[in-house]
Amino acid sequence: MSTTPDRVAVIGLGNLGHALAETFLRQGIPTTVWNRDAAKADALVAAGATAAATAAEAIESSELVLVALLDATVARQVLTTAGDAVAGRALVNVTSGGPEDARELATWAAEHGARYLHGAVYAVPQTIGTAGSSISYSGAQDVHRRWQPKLDLLGKGTFLGADAGLASGYDVAILAGMYGMIGGFLHATAMASAAGVRATELTPMLLSWLADSFPALTTFAEEIDRGGYTGGESSLAMNQAGLSTIIRASRALDVPPDTLLPIKDLIDRQIAAGHGAASLSRAVESFRSAA
Amino acid sequence: MSTTPDRVAVIGLGNLGHALAETFLRQGIPTTVWNRDAAKADALVAAGATAAATAAEAIESSELVLVALLDATVARQVLTTAGDAVAGRALVNVTSGGPEDARELATWAAEHGARYLHGAVYAVPQTIGTAGSSISYSGAQDVHRRWQPKLDLLGKGTFLGADAGLASGYDVAILAGMYGMIGGFLHATAMASAAGVRATELTPMLLSWLADSFPALTTFAEEIDRGGYTGGESSLAMNQAGLSTIIRASRALDVPPDTLLPIKDLIDRQIAAGHGAASLSRAVESFRSAA
Ligand SMILES: NC(=O)c1ccc[n+]([C@@H]2O[C@H](COP(=O)([O-])OP(=O)(O)OC[C@H]3O[C@@H](n4cnc5c(N)ncnc54)[C@H](OP(=O)(O)O)[C@@H]3O)[C@@H](O)[C@H]2O)c1
Ligand SMILES: NC(=O)c1ccc[n+]([C@@H]2O[C@H](COP(=O)([O-])OP(=O)(O)OC[C@H]3O[C@@H](n4cnc5c(N)ncnc54)[C@H](OP(=O)(O)O)[C@@H]3O)[C@@H](O)[C@H]2O)c1
Repeated sequence: MSTTPDRVAVIGLGNLGHALAETFLRQGIPTTVWNRDAAKADALVAAGATAAATAAEAIESSELVLVALLDATVARQVLTTAGDAVAGRALVNVTSGGPEDARELATWAAEHGARYLHGAVYAVPQTIGTAGSSISYSGAQDVHRRWQPKLDLLGKGTFLGADAGLASGYDVAILAGMYGMIGGFLHATAMASAAGVRATELTPMLLSWLADSFPALTTFAEEIDRGGYTGGESSLAMNQAGLSTIIRASRALDVPPDTLLPIKDLIDRQIAAGHGAASLSRAVESFRSAA
Repeated sequence: MSTTPDRVAVIGLGNLGHALAETFLRQGIPTTVWNRDAAKADALVAAGATAAATAAEAIESSELVLVALLDATVARQVLTTAGDAVAGRALVNVTSGGPEDARELATWAAEHGARYLHGAVYAVPQTIGTAGSSISYSGAQDVHRRWQPKLDLLGKGTFLGADAGLASGYDVAILAGMYGMIGGFLHATAMASAAGVRATELTPMLLSWLADSFPALTTFAEEIDRGGYTGGESSLAMNQAGLSTIIRASRALDVPPDTLLPIKDLIDRQIAAGHGAASLSRAVESFRSAA
């Protein structure tokens, strides 16, 4: 198995890694794969992949190495075991983790003569390689430039900056925002159901209201970056009253309001500090003062 | 001041009631207004409104009566004081509250010979009377039909059904969902900022990811209505792992993950009950089992 500029290696053949390897193979790209449980390579080998006996062997086979493992700890462990095999390689790690995990691995890679690019994947395995997939990268821009034709096969790529932790920073923040919306959705459907409204009746109206609220979030973002919270149309005091009404209504419907209480707490703490007339966006300060 | 089919009355001249009266006046509709603090009628009187000395007097002036007061308790109190003045009137109450508040007032109205329609306003006072305003109604459909030309001046109207509590049921559920999204947004911007990403850099990506997640919520709604949570692409177990990663990343960034913990708890409880392979939408059952 020779190292050619054309060959790629995929380390980790879970749901995501498998989809990455499959996409490369479908495009006729020579692909070396490795997985702890070797049986997961079988279908890919049948589709033309080369299975490596160790992660080091897979890494040595290719200039471009994609890493898709369970979490940052496993990624670190597998790469550390491969050790000097990474020298001269471009490591593109799409394993989820926090910004500091990516930065640590980037430092480790530099110490071992490798270039490091971190990728945050916005796709499910089924949509990898389709228009429904996008990937944000940060770290070594030369890696992104050099390998962009191959990386773009996986999904629409965006390079965010030289800090290897940036892509993960965006990623964990975006997923936190998504889980907030999902929590709100679940609470909303529970309340609707208690009020005799089906989830499928509620959801179109809810989604259209959420989409209509996007411009307000854009305004909040500007206020947050300015640290200037005055002049908002939606004051903390108004929202404290509004959210209290919702919490009361939730209790009256026997739906525990637990997902809303910490949000009200963010608001309450700013009002207690004398900022009732400030924009709702000031509630972000409650995360900071608590830290 | 004579009762003509053309005249409307507006009870309560806070931010919302003021905007309602202003919109009617702008359309040349004879408008009677009442507010506890009489001074709030002055600008409207200057614009052509008739000020009534009591709520009962305002109600007697018009077949169509809009009520926009602080909350359900105040609405009930003001209407009770007006008493038999409501007989023969169409009461359109746009005061926020829970579904049971609207149902109680509808019963009270029926006992006093009035028709009752409840309205949930999706607008800020500034957008009342513009394309940016929509209002959901439930209760007496004949009131909605008869007065639709006037009501439609305030915003795009939708009639939801004969249960007076329906509009509020949708309303409180939708607002619960909105506050969930806002909580997620605030958490996301706090994490981003701790990771060196500005809120205005994050927000476009966050909003596009949220919009991309709408179809998943639509699928969840179908699963919730069916009570059939199998076959989902997004299992409770996967989301427990994903959300745990975000919570860990939040702590590592010194951003307290408090808004995410009750969402994780909804998931954890379903998994503890043996449903790890079920769709994330099953987390809605945690609201029910707790109640
Ligand atoms: N799936 C997605 O839609 C998606 C989307 C965006 C990001 N991600 C991220 O991508 C990463 C992989 O996700 P996935 O869905 O592919 O996960 P997965 O299906 O659970 O696969 C986990 C992979 O990690 C390997 N692994 C676990 N522990 C190991 C260890 N101690 N030593 C060596 N290998 C080990 C597994 O090998 P074995 O087969 O031997 O257990 C498997 O290859 C995760 O960080 C995930 O958050 C996934
Ligand atoms: N503003 C909005 O964008 C909006 C949107 C949708 C729904 N709503 C709902 O509409 C309702 C009114 O909202 P708003 O913004 O107009 O509120 P607001 O500006 O605070 O006005 C409150 C109104 O209630 C009156 N009021 C308070 N306590 C009273 C009492 N004990 N007796 C008699 N009148 C009393 C006030 O009269 P005084 O002037 O004498 O204090 C005033 O007319 C609320 O339920 C709100 O949730 C508002």
